[in-house]
Amino acid sequence: MAKDPKQLADLFHDTLKDIYFAEKKILTALPKMAKAAQSDELRAAFEKHEGETEGQVERLEQVFADIGAKPQGKTCDAIMGILDEGKEIMDEYKGSPALDAGLLAAAQSVEHYEISRYGTLCAWAQELGHDKSLELLKQTLDEEETTDEALSELAESVINQKAHAEAAE
Amino acid sequence: MAKDPKQLADLFHDTLKDIYFAEKKILTALPKMAKAAQSDELRAAFEKHEGETEGQVERLEQVFADIGAKPQGKTCDAIMGILDEGKEIMDEYKGSPALDAGLLAAAQSVEHYEISRYGTLCAWAQELGHDKSLELLKQTLDEEETTDEALSELAESVINQKAHAEAAE
Repeated sequence: MAKDPKQLADLFHDTLKDIYFAEKKILTALPKMAKAAQSDELRAAFEKHEGETEGQVERLEQVFADIGAKPQGKTCDAIMGILDEGKEIMDEYKGSPALDAGLLAAAQSVEHYEISRYGTLCAWAQELGHDKSLELLKQTLDEEETTDEALSELAESVINQKAHAEAAE
Repeated sequence: MAKDPKQLADLFHDTLKDIYFAEKKILTALPKMAKAAQSDELRAAFEKHEGETEGQVERLEQVFADIGAKPQGKTCDAIMGILDEGKEIMDEYKGSPALDAGLLAAAQSVEHYEISRYGTLCAWAQELGHDKSLELLKQTLDEEETTDEALSELAESVINQKAHAEAAE
């Protein structure tokens, strides 16, 4: 079957489907991570991010509309692998003082995947002249970067010390 | 079998094994990505990063030595998934003007995974008082961040425009 080669617009659309799938998977993972978290601070951070993620899914639906496409996901192997590592931490570190440190790190891997995807989508939206999409994607990129910084702060100010102090007891 | 719960030191060691496995997988993927790249600039960027990655593997071996452990990998589902996405791009965008834009984006997902892992390992090395490890891990973190920025610049100055210009021809 001879087909025209795919274009940058197709790549933008495919990557949109990839992150739409990823955000929905993240939405199902966050309540489990919140439930597993030992500290109130980390649980609160996960719950807050769950709310944000719902808004990010809606924004993606607006981006699909902006390019005249239906919201649709496409299996994203990367997020599956990243979330599997989070599950592994929940199993292997259950009852361990280091559990929260591991969960927080897993969440930061998720954030960094998203930062990379949204950064790329912003650059392509700009190149393709999708101004409305660019604005929406930039809002989510800013949110993901803020979440990642907040997690780093929480790790350094509370979670890592707790993990280590309890280990030393 | 009753075992003591794992500690932060175990989490540090497990995560070290995870990124050691990941770096070795990246070392096998980079030559394929360089070969697939259409533009000389992107090929050169991948080749340069291959050299850096070899140095990063050596640094990880020094970190293993610093904590008195043998260098050893542990299957990292995240990097497997992320690299699978890169392979998908190579297949689906073969002969497309958008191939390089997709390859570059895939490489940035890899970089962001590494940035997240090395950032976490630095924080834990500091908490655990592994000063020599911290110095080594910080060097690699800086390199990964510089590589990611260089890829963003290359995307915005050359690769995305090429992908789009050729599409419009």
